Amino acid sequence: MKDWLRELQQILPEERILTSAADRYSYSFDASFGEYMPEAVVQVKKKEEVAAVLKVANRCRVPVYPRGSGTCLSGGPLPVYGGIVLDMSQWPAVIEMQPYDLTVDVTPSVKTVDINAEAAEHGLMYAPDPSSAHVATIGGNLAENSGGPRGLKYGVTKDHVLGLEVVTPEGEIIRTGGRTIKNVTGFDLTKLIVGSEGTLAVIVGATLKLMPKPKAVQTMMVAFQEVRKAGEAISRTLTSGILPAKMEFMDQACIVAVENFQPVGLPVDAAAIVIIELDGHPETLRVERGLVEEIMLDVGAVEIIIPKTEEEAAAIWHARKQVSPAIAKIKPTKVSEDATVPRSKIPDFIDRLHTIKEKYQVEVVAFGHAGDGNLHPNVLCDKRDKEEMKRAEAAVEAMFEAALELGGTLSGEHGIGTMKAPFMEAELGAVGLEMMKRIKDSWDPNGILNPGKIFPEKGQKLVLTDE
Amino acid sequence: MKDWLRELQQILPEERILTSAADRYSYSFDASFGEYMPEAVVQVKKKEEVAAVLKVANRCRVPVYPRGSGTCLSGGPLPVYGGIVLDMSQWPAVIEMQPYDLTVDVTPSVKTVDINAEAAEHGLMYAPDPSSAHVATIGGNLAENSGGPRGLKYGVTKDHVLGLEVVTPEGEIIRTGGRTIKNVTGFDLTKLIVGSEGTLAVIVGATLKLMPKPKAVQTMMVAFQEVRKAGEAISRTLTSGILPAKMEFMDQACIVAVENFQPVGLPVDAAAIVIIELDGHPETLRVERGLVEEIMLDVGAVEIIIPKTEEEAAAIWHARKQVSPAIAKIKPTKVSEDATVPRSKIPDFIDRLHTIKEKYQVEVVAFGHAGDGNLHPNVLCDKRDKEEMKRAEAAVEAMFEAALELGGTLSGEHGIGTMKAPFMEAELGAVGLEMMKRIKDSWDPNGILNPGKIFPEKGQKLVLTDE
Repeated sequence: MKDWLRELQQILPEERILTSAADRYSYSFDASFGEYMPEAVVQVKKKEEVAAVLKVANRCRVPVYPRGSGTCLSGGPLPVYGGIVLDMSQWPAVIEMQPYDLTVDVTPSVKTVDINAEAAEHGLMYAPDPSSAHVATIGGNLAENSGGPRGLKYGVTKDHVLGLEVVTPEGEIIRTGGRTIKNVTGFDLTKLIVGSEGTLAVIVGATLKLMPKPKAVQTMMVAFQEVRKAGEAISRTLTSGILPAKMEFMDQACIVAVENFQPVGLPVDAAAIVIIELDGHPETLRVERGLVEEIMLDVGAVEIIIPKTEEEAAAIWHARKQVSPAIAKIKPTKVSEDATVPRSKIPDFIDRLHTIKEKYQVEVVAFGHAGDGNLHPNVLCDKRDKEEMKRAEAAVEAMFEAALELGGTLSGEHGIGTMKAPFMEAELGAVGLEMMKRIKDSWDPNGILNPGKIFPEKGQKLVLTDE
Repeated sequence: MKDWLRELQQILPEERILTSAADRYSYSFDASFGEYMPEAVVQVKKKEEVAAVLKVANRCRVPVYPRGSGTCLSGGPLPVYGGIVLDMSQWPAVIEMQPYDLTVDVTPSVKTVDINAEAAEHGLMYAPDPSSAHVATIGGNLAENSGGPRGLKYGVTKDHVLGLEVVTPEGEIIRTGGRTIKNVTGFDLTKLIVGSEGTLAVIVGATLKLMPKPKAVQTMMVAFQEVRKAGEAISRTLTSGILPAKMEFMDQACIVAVENFQPVGLPVDAAAIVIIELDGHPETLRVERGLVEEIMLDVGAVEIIIPKTEEEAAAIWHARKQVSPAIAKIKPTKVSEDATVPRSKIPDFIDRLHTIKEKYQVEVVAFGHAGDGNLHPNVLCDKRDKEEMKRAEAAVEAMFEAALELGGTLSGEHGIGTMKAPFMEAELGAVGLEMMKRIKDSWDPNGILNPGKIFPEKGQKLVLTDE
């Protein structure tokens, strides 16, 4: 038995150190690509345990891979160099509200959806709403800086974090930020750690910001005969003085896929639909709804559906949530991307996706948070078909290039992980990447915390196949 | 002549390198305390010049102090170790709007107020509104992560920056972030550099986020007979589901000072006033105004003033802006603090200020952005009176302690600079501070960029006197 494993047994009860092949296999993958077997899985339940494990790992130079629910789409928790998976999911879930401060304290294992549910009881809202909120942990959301539809109006996870408690790679417990809305005391370690994909520190607690829950919401679904017109409608709305909470886009392939999967009466003849949610005071909504309708008709919408009941509105949003499972039925392998462009470039990006689809002869469908320029083009393929996968890889590369050429970014919300590391230098330049690496090295001199993520290995390429 | 000065003369025209005592003196102070003479002042006008100057300074180990308009309240631009002041104020001011992306590109010398004015022409708003916006540069705002009254609803400078162009201490030009609303490509260098007080990089350009300008605003002024009731009124409003754009507080000393300075008819008998600005759709404002009035009366407001015209509203906000110059007339030296507490702790913090005032027998007045817990207690004194200044120093220390004990922070918006460096460890702990220092050292191995700020020297204490 390895020395470090023996040391871990001094720290944790036996049943929380998993070493059987079957147990380890369950931690070898996430919602992205690739399988990597860890040497051990360690289930931690308090910060002192995390600190103790990291001290051992740092001394023995063993890689440590923090993991929440494993819903990551970019490989964040994958143990690419073996070592230890630090399973945070067994940590007791505790939500402590401070309604008069508009803040909430959470442990890392809390499900994101539960935070918002608890806040709602006080007339408050936790704004970030990643699609995985019902299963993902807040720890994972913080590590990856998760987005979601409501990001259009309210921003992403990072915009709602006031303070963190973290364990450094060397096993020291520190607090960053605090409980106040404003804080300029030194460097902003909070916003540095949120979104650092578990490479700088292990998040063991957080203070999040809450806000008044909007009094009312108004859903609208608008159908277009041309994809480009949907993009124009989004641009026009956003420069009209109205900021909807959500503006989601689905192309025809997604609409058809949802209708085949779970029919809800979407307009299958439309080239694209845009689903809008306005929120605020009911009177404001009445006025804004009218203005949005005018814009949509002016741009050339063929149908505007205004749900009459909450149930009808919920059905529309349910349809949007079904896109991912529905398109997964079309072909067995789904490569979900999140390259993001400036808002005005959405129509151009949609054109580029069409060209890429033709050129590489792959199935590409697109949906997502069009209002903030964050589309999710998905390449649908079959990972058993090596030749097709090569074309899929080339198509994904071409999407990244297109996004960067349009002034965009590799990743709007899924993170870099293993998937996009090879493209980092194209976006950041060699020096930009080097300045990030300096921070990593200064915090984690032995490189034990989530190695193999964000920073590309020499000559690393995008690989979607297992070989 | 020093070698590095000779080298700078190869880079820049003679008239942009100032070495006379008179010229250097103008750059020896800011709006805080202390005077430090630089060895030279260098006026840069493009990024290549900044890069060249930093390369020389880094090679020759000469400190470099970037400076905008010098309005800093915490000593950010003070050349505490001599060397070079890098004057950014002569840089051509360029504002490039991209209204369809809801973004704007700016050069570092642009006045913050001009960005908002330009945005307004497109029906848009640049939300951050520091009190110094008409004279401060956006470069300084970015370096210090400036706040302002509107921070309550819209957040601070950092929340409105999408990307930066910066020069590293070693003279390399890099871009961080980008032009998209969402971006999770690697570490968030943008939010790390914003608020790092010019210690990590020199900001030479920025892409800022704009938002739809609210359709209407509604100002209200509310008077209270007890300071604590004003604090309660703020708490109650913020948990009622209403988020005003601004909630400003003035105690009686500030009210009287303004009336003595420039009479506008403020209620001088009140113990405190709260000035509120609601923004949004006119119909929403009508409803919210009614709700706020109910809350205020319920808590025990003695007077609610609703301005009938834009001019009347402007007069109220003008009075708020006059607090700083007005209280400066009471005594010659004004120590402006910005310790910040969780919102619900505002009444407690006000009580603590009263105790501190009694204990140290100093004049303390309080005003500021009470809605986000960010008060500005000001100690009014006379720096020629050494004995009084010692009491003032003790009072300021006691304020920091009180803020931290109430779960708050040393600085909500003014920054650490030279003023608060001695108190950093009390808030962050030794390891927290060390993790910040590691980042600084990894980016600036020779310690040439704005040395003497944020990180305390061994045994450093608060000193408000010049000796």
